[in-house]
Amino acid sequence: MAGNYLGEVFRVTTFGESHGIGIGAVIDGCPAGLELSVEKIQKDLDRRRPGQSHITSQRKESDTVQILSGVFNNRTLGTPIALFITNEDQRSKDYDHIEDAFRPSHADYTYQAKYGFRDHRGGGRSSARATAALVAAGAIAKQLISEFSLLVGAFVTQVGNLRVNKLHHESESDFLELISVVESNIVRCPDQPLAEQMIELIEQVRKEGDTVGGIITCVVKNCPVGLGEPLFSKLQSDLAKAMFSINAVHGFEYGSGFDGSSKRGSENNDVFYAKGDKILTRTNYSGGIQGGISNGMDIYFRVAFKPVATIVKAQESVNEKGESVEVKGRGRHDPCVLPRAVPIVEAAAAIVLADHLLRNRSAKL
Amino acid sequence: MAGNYLGEVFRVTTFGESHGIGIGAVIDGCPAGLELSVEKIQKDLDRRRPGQSHITSQRKESDTVQILSGVFNNRTLGTPIALFITNEDQRSKDYDHIEDAFRPSHADYTYQAKYGFRDHRGGGRSSARATAALVAAGAIAKQLISEFSLLVGAFVTQVGNLRVNKLHHESESDFLELISVVESNIVRCPDQPLAEQMIELIEQVRKEGDTVGGIITCVVKNCPVGLGEPLFSKLQSDLAKAMFSINAVHGFEYGSGFDGSSKRGSENNDVFYAKGDKILTRTNYSGGIQGGISNGMDIYFRVAFKPVATIVKAQESVNEKGESVEVKGRGRHDPCVLPRAVPIVEAAAAIVLADHLLRNRSAKL
Amino acid sequence: MAGNYLGEVFRVTTFGESHGIGIGAVIDGCPAGLELSVEKIQKDLDRRRPGQSHITSQRKESDTVQILSGVFNNRTLGTPIALFITNEDQRSKDYDHIEDAFRPSHADYTYQAKYGFRDHRGGGRSSARATAALVAAGAIAKQLISEFSLLVGAFVTQVGNLRVNKLHHESESDFLELISVVESNIVRCPDQPLAEQMIELIEQVRKEGDTVGGIITCVVKNCPVGLGEPLFSKLQSDLAKAMFSINAVHGFEYGSGFDGSSKRGSENNDVFYAKGDKILTRTNYSGGIQGGISNGMDIYFRVAFKPVATIVKAQESVNEKGESVEVKGRGRHDPCVLPRAVPIVEAAAAIVLADHLLRNRSAKL
Amino acid sequence: MAGNYLGEVFRVTTFGESHGIGIGAVIDGCPAGLELSVEKIQKDLDRRRPGQSHITSQRKESDTVQILSGVFNNRTLGTPIALFITNEDQRSKDYDHIEDAFRPSHADYTYQAKYGFRDHRGGGRSSARATAALVAAGAIAKQLISEFSLLVGAFVTQVGNLRVNKLHHESESDFLELISVVESNIVRCPDQPLAEQMIELIEQVRKEGDTVGGIITCVVKNCPVGLGEPLFSKLQSDLAKAMFSINAVHGFEYGSGFDGSSKRGSENNDVFYAKGDKILTRTNYSGGIQGGISNGMDIYFRVAFKPVATIVKAQESVNEKGESVEVKGRGRHDPCVLPRAVPIVEAAAAIVLADHLLRNRSAKL
Repeated sequence: MAGNYLGEVFRVTTFGESHGIGIGAVIDGCPAGLELSVEKIQKDLDRRRPGQSHITSQRKESDTVQILSGVFNNRTLGTPIALFITNEDQRSKDYDHIEDAFRPSHADYTYQAKYGFRDHRGGGRSSARATAALVAAGAIAKQLISEFSLLVGAFVTQVGNLRVNKLHHESESDFLELISVVESNIVRCPDQPLAEQMIELIEQVRKEGDTVGGIITCVVKNCPVGLGEPLFSKLQSDLAKAMFSINAVHGFEYGSGFDGSSKRGSENNDVFYAKGDKILTRTNYSGGIQGGISNGMDIYFRVAFKPVATIVKAQESVNEKGESVEVKGRGRHDPCVLPRAVPIVEAAAAIVLADHLLRNRSAKL
Repeated sequence: MAGNYLGEVFRVTTFGESHGIGIGAVIDGCPAGLELSVEKIQKDLDRRRPGQSHITSQRKESDTVQILSGVFNNRTLGTPIALFITNEDQRSKDYDHIEDAFRPSHADYTYQAKYGFRDHRGGGRSSARATAALVAAGAIAKQLISEFSLLVGAFVTQVGNLRVNKLHHESESDFLELISVVESNIVRCPDQPLAEQMIELIEQVRKEGDTVGGIITCVVKNCPVGLGEPLFSKLQSDLAKAMFSINAVHGFEYGSGFDGSSKRGSENNDVFYAKGDKILTRTNYSGGIQGGISNGMDIYFRVAFKPVATIVKAQESVNEKGESVEVKGRGRHDPCVLPRAVPIVEAAAAIVLADHLLRNRSAKL
Repeated sequence: MAGNYLGEVFRVTTFGESHGIGIGAVIDGCPAGLELSVEKIQKDLDRRRPGQSHITSQRKESDTVQILSGVFNNRTLGTPIALFITNEDQRSKDYDHIEDAFRPSHADYTYQAKYGFRDHRGGGRSSARATAALVAAGAIAKQLISEFSLLVGAFVTQVGNLRVNKLHHESESDFLELISVVESNIVRCPDQPLAEQMIELIEQVRKEGDTVGGIITCVVKNCPVGLGEPLFSKLQSDLAKAMFSINAVHGFEYGSGFDGSSKRGSENNDVFYAKGDKILTRTNYSGGIQGGISNGMDIYFRVAFKPVATIVKAQESVNEKGESVEVKGRGRHDPCVLPRAVPIVEAAAAIVLADHLLRNRSAKL
Repeated sequence: MAGNYLGEVFRVTTFGESHGIGIGAVIDGCPAGLELSVEKIQKDLDRRRPGQSHITSQRKESDTVQILSGVFNNRTLGTPIALFITNEDQRSKDYDHIEDAFRPSHADYTYQAKYGFRDHRGGGRSSARATAALVAAGAIAKQLISEFSLLVGAFVTQVGNLRVNKLHHESESDFLELISVVESNIVRCPDQPLAEQMIELIEQVRKEGDTVGGIITCVVKNCPVGLGEPLFSKLQSDLAKAMFSINAVHGFEYGSGFDGSSKRGSENNDVFYAKGDKILTRTNYSGGIQGGISNGMDIYFRVAFKPVATIVKAQESVNEKGESVEVKGRGRHDPCVLPRAVPIVEAAAAIVLADHLLRNRSAKL
C-alpha cells in the first residue's frame, strides 16, 4: 500500500514530481463551514518558496496555489479540497548527467531499485519540491485548528554548530513576539544576533560549494487536553511520523528528549498543580504530551536536519550499470534547507493536530 | 479513529489493560504458509517479562502466550492470528490511592480528560504491560522477515550517563557475536564491563527510590533494497512512529541523526561504489535509508527513553477535583526500563519491516 | 491488505476458525462511557446459536461470550474491547473426507488456491461460525446506537417461494409489535401463518437432504439525518459491503431496489413536505438514503441468501490433485440459514450505523 | 473519516463539484512500469460523456483528461497519478431556483443537513458529473488488469420493462463479439432489436418530461483464482460497495442473486470438474466467487438503477425554511442514465479488481 497520504480523518494525499506539470494535494475530511483564506495559504507558500532570499535556492517559482474543488463562496463544503501548484521553472537539462547515475545520499538509487524506473529530473517525486503541496495543505490545517485557538510556530534553533540557548515563550504574547523576530530575519531564527551569524555561515558554506544541517524547534500553544490516540497513534508518534516524511530529517525528540535519557525520574517528572479550574504541571519535560495524549501544556519538539546532499564538489558514485562515475551538483540548490523548512515543519504539525482534533471527537459517548 | 493498530498490510491490533483479564493482539495480514515457532514467541516474551532479574519489576507474570486462531498444523493460514496472554499477578490494591489522583508524568490525567473515565489499576491501558502483546506480535513478524534473511537486534547503549562507545558489527558474524554478548548480561549492553557499571547504577538508583533513563540502539541487517513508501510512509517515518508508541520514548534518530545537524554535506554524504553486482556506500550516515527507502546497507537507529515516572519518593500532585494531594509510587516498578525494552524495540521494528516487505510487493508491475 | 475488519472509526476485527480454540473480535474505536450489558450481547448470540430449534444445525455451542478488555465497572473505557467465544462442540472427524477434496459451492477450493493451505475442518475461517463474532460485536454497536435512539430490526420475508406481502411498521410502536411477532416464531417471520408454512417447508427440505434460500428484510428506525460519507462510503455502499460479507448472501437492494429499475421518475420520486420542524417525504422509495446520506426516514433493505451449499445428497467434485471424487455433506448443517441469519444482518447493520454515527462527527466545523 | 476514496492498495481519491473548476482523481498505489495509453482513458471518458447521442444529456463537455503527475515517458512511476478534467459548460443559472429548495429524491436536502452548507449548482459534489473522475481512474485500472489478461465488459440488460433474455458469452471470442454489438448501438444493449425498442422508449419518456430506470450487467473474464479478502473485503463485498457508490444504483446481485433465494441447494450448487490442469464448475450460479474469493470462472453481476430523479414535471417540495415550494427540473439531464453508466460500472469494477490483484500479492509467504 503506497504511502502518499498523511492523516486519518483529516487526510492529505499529495502528488507531483519536481519537473512535471505541477504538484498538488487533495484533502479529504476537512469539515464543512470553514472560512478559507487563500492569502494565508499563499503566505505560507511564500515562506517556503525558493528564491525568497540570497541564502536559498534560486529556482524561480511563484508557487501560486489554485483551489480546484471543495470550496464554495470561500467556505469549505466538506467535500475534498484539491490544491494545485504549477511548476514554472524546471531546467531539466541540469539533470541530464544523472539520467543513469546516482547522486550520493540522494534517492536516485533507491527509487530506481524500488520502482525499476524513475524520473531523474530534479529527483522527481523525491525532490523537496513536493513539500510545497504539504505546506499548502498544512495552511488549511492551520486555519482549521486556529478555529479552536491552536497556534503552531516553528523556528531555526541550530545551523551547523551555532545553537540558540534558552528561549522564553510561556505566555502567548511572548510567543507571538518570538515568532515576529523569527519572521524578521531570512534564516528564521528567534535570536537576532545569532541569526546574523547563521546567515554568514550559510553564505560561507555556499561559497565552499558545500551545505550544512541544523535543527528546527516547533511549539504548539493552546492545544486542548485529550489529543492523541494510544497506543500507536500517540500524538508524538504521529508528529514524529510526519516530521520524518520531510526531506533530510534524521532526528526527532519532544519534551526532554535525548537529554532526558541521562536524567533521574525525580528530576524529569512534571508535578501537577491546580490553577483555577485548570490542571497544570510545574515543569514541562513531558513536552505537553503524557501517555500519548496532550495534557494542555505547550507541546514542543525538535527536528534534526542533515546537510543537503547536493554539493558542488565532485563525488565518487556509480551508474545504473554499476560503473564508477563522478557526480557534481548542478541544478539550483539550497546550501542550508533550514530557513525554508520552517513552514514545512509547521504544516506537517498542523495536519497532525487537525487530524487529532477530529479523531478525538469520537473518544467519548 | 482510535489508534490501537500498527501496520497497513501486516496489521497488528493490540488490546488489554494492566489489571484486566489479560492482554493480546490480532495480526491481520500475515501471509499463509509461515512455519510458526511458539517457542520463539515465548523466548521474546521471557526477555521482556518482569521479574527476569533483580534490576526489573518483581511483578510475577509467566506471560505464557496462547495462539487462539490463524495457525493450523504449526503453519499460518493467512487468516487473523489472535494471541492472548493472561494477567496473573495483578495487585490492584496497590493502586487504590490513585483511584482519583494523578501520578506525575503518567497518563492518569490525560486518560481521565480524554475518555472521561479510566481504569486506574496499574495505569490500565497506558501501562507498559501492553507492550507484551506487541512483543508477541513482533516475534511473529521476526519469523516472517527471517524467511527473507532479515535480522533485527537491539541493545542498551546508554543508562544515565554511562554510554557505549564505537561498536563494530559490519559483518553478520560480528553482529551475531555482539548480540550474544548483549544477551549474556541482564542489562543487555554489548560492552560487558560497561554492563556491570550500568547494573550497579540501576541498583543504586533503585535504592534511592528513583529511576533512570537511557538509550537503545537497534540494527537491522540484510534488509533488501526498496522497503519504504514515500512520501509519508517512509521507512524512517514508520519506524519512528512505532518507536514513539513505546512507553517512555522521547527521542528517535537514525543514521547520523542529531549529530548530522552540525555537519557539512561533504562530510555526511555516503558515496556509492560497486562490489560485484551490489551497490554499496563507503560510509553509512544515511543509516541504510535514502529518500525513505532502504538502500541495502545496515539500518540503525537510536531510541531515547526517559526515566520511569513511578518513583518511591513523595511527589506533589492533584486529584480529580483539582485538590492538592501527595503521591508516592507503590506497585512494583522498574528502576530502569531499558533492559526489558530491548525486545520491545526489536518487536516494533520487526512489525514495521514485515509490513513494508509486504507493501513493497505492489511497487512494480 | 487482508480484510478481516469492518468499519473505519468503530472498527471491528474478527478472528477464529470453526474448529479452532474459539472465535472472537476486537472493537477499536468504541467511545468511552457506554454502559455495557453482557446480557444483551448474549441474547443476540442466543438468537444466532446453532441448536436453538429443530430447524437449525444441531451443533451444541453455548456461545458464551467473554469480554477480555476495554470495559471497567460495566462501562467502556475507550480502549479496545476484545470478545472471545470458545468453540465447544467441534467434531473435526466429520470433515476428514474433505481434507483434500472440495465441496461444491463452498470455499474449500478458493481458500486452497489463495493461501496454498487451509484448515479443512468445518470450513475453517470460511465457516458461518465466524459470524458469531460479528453478532457479539454488533450487539455492542446496537447498544451504542441505541444511546442515540436508533433501532435496528430484521426479519425473514421469504423462504423458497413463500413470500411475505406488504408490511406496516410506520410508527415505532407498530414496528416493535412486528418485531415481537418475529421473535415469537422459530423462523423469525413477521407473518405468523406464513411462518408456519415456512417451518413446514424447511422441515420438508431437510428430510430431502436438501437446503433452501430466502430473503431477510432489515429496517432501521430513528436514524438521524446526515449519516453516510459520499462518494465511496455512502451509507448504502457500506451497508451493502457489510451484508455481502455474510455467508451465502448473493443480493442486496434498498428502497425501491430492483423494482425501481422498471419505474418512471415520476412514480419513484419521494416528494418532500414539512411536518412541524421536520422535513419528511410522502413516499420512501429512497429507503431513507439520498445521495448516500440518511434523510431521517426509515432505512430499509433486503438481503438475498442462496440455499446453504452443504447438502446430504452425493455430488460430483474434485480433490486437490484434480481427480474426480464424490462428496456428501456430513457434519451438522442448517437446511435453511435464514432464521439464524436475522441477528447477523442486524449486527452488520448496527456496526455500519455505529461507524457512520461517529464518522459524521467530523462533517461540520 | 470522509469517504472520497475507493480501494486499499490501488487507492483512488476523487474530487470536484459539477459547476466548479473541474473534477479529478489521484491514484495512489498504481505499480511502476505500466505503459499508459491516454487514448484509452479518453475513449472511456467519451463513452461516458454527455451529449454523445440524442438520448443523453446535452451538456457539452469534451471531458479532456490531463495527467498531472505520476507518469514519465508514458510509463507509471509508482508515484501518485493525478488526473484532471476541466468543467467547460456549466450553466449555473439553471440552478438558481434550487439555491434554497430541495429537489425530490436528490441529495440537496441531505447535503444541506449533513454539512450545513452546500454548492447547489448542478448538485455540487452529488452530481453524476463526479463519475467522470471515476471513469478516468478506472481506465487506468483497466490497463493495469489487462496486463494480467483480465477483461471487464458491461452492458444494458434492462430499460423500464424491456429486458434482455439469455446471453451467451462463454468463450472469450463470443464475449468480444457481444461487446462489439453493445458498442454499436447508443443504448449499449447486446441485443440489437431490443436496443432499438429501448431507444424508442427513452425518446418517449423524454418527451413526457419523465425518466426511466434499468439494469446493467457486468462480466469479468479471465480473473485468476484467489482474488478477494475474507471476511469483510470479499470480492463481492467490494464490488457491491463500489457499485452502490454510483449515482442512482439501488440494487446489486451476483451469480444467482435474488433468484437463488427461491432455489434448493441441489439446484444452485456448482459442482467441480477438472479439465486439463484447471478446476472448473459445470454451472456458475456462484458468479465466479466462492467464499468471497474468485474461483476462475466468469464473474458476473447485475446493477439496478432507479430512474433519474430530475424530471421536467412540477413536483411538490420544501425549501430550507421548511416552506412548501414547487420544483421543476431545469438544467440538462438524462432521461435514462443507463447508456452512459456502462463505462462507469466497468470503471468501478476495474478499480476493485486492480486493488484485489495487488492485495492478493500478500496472501502467501
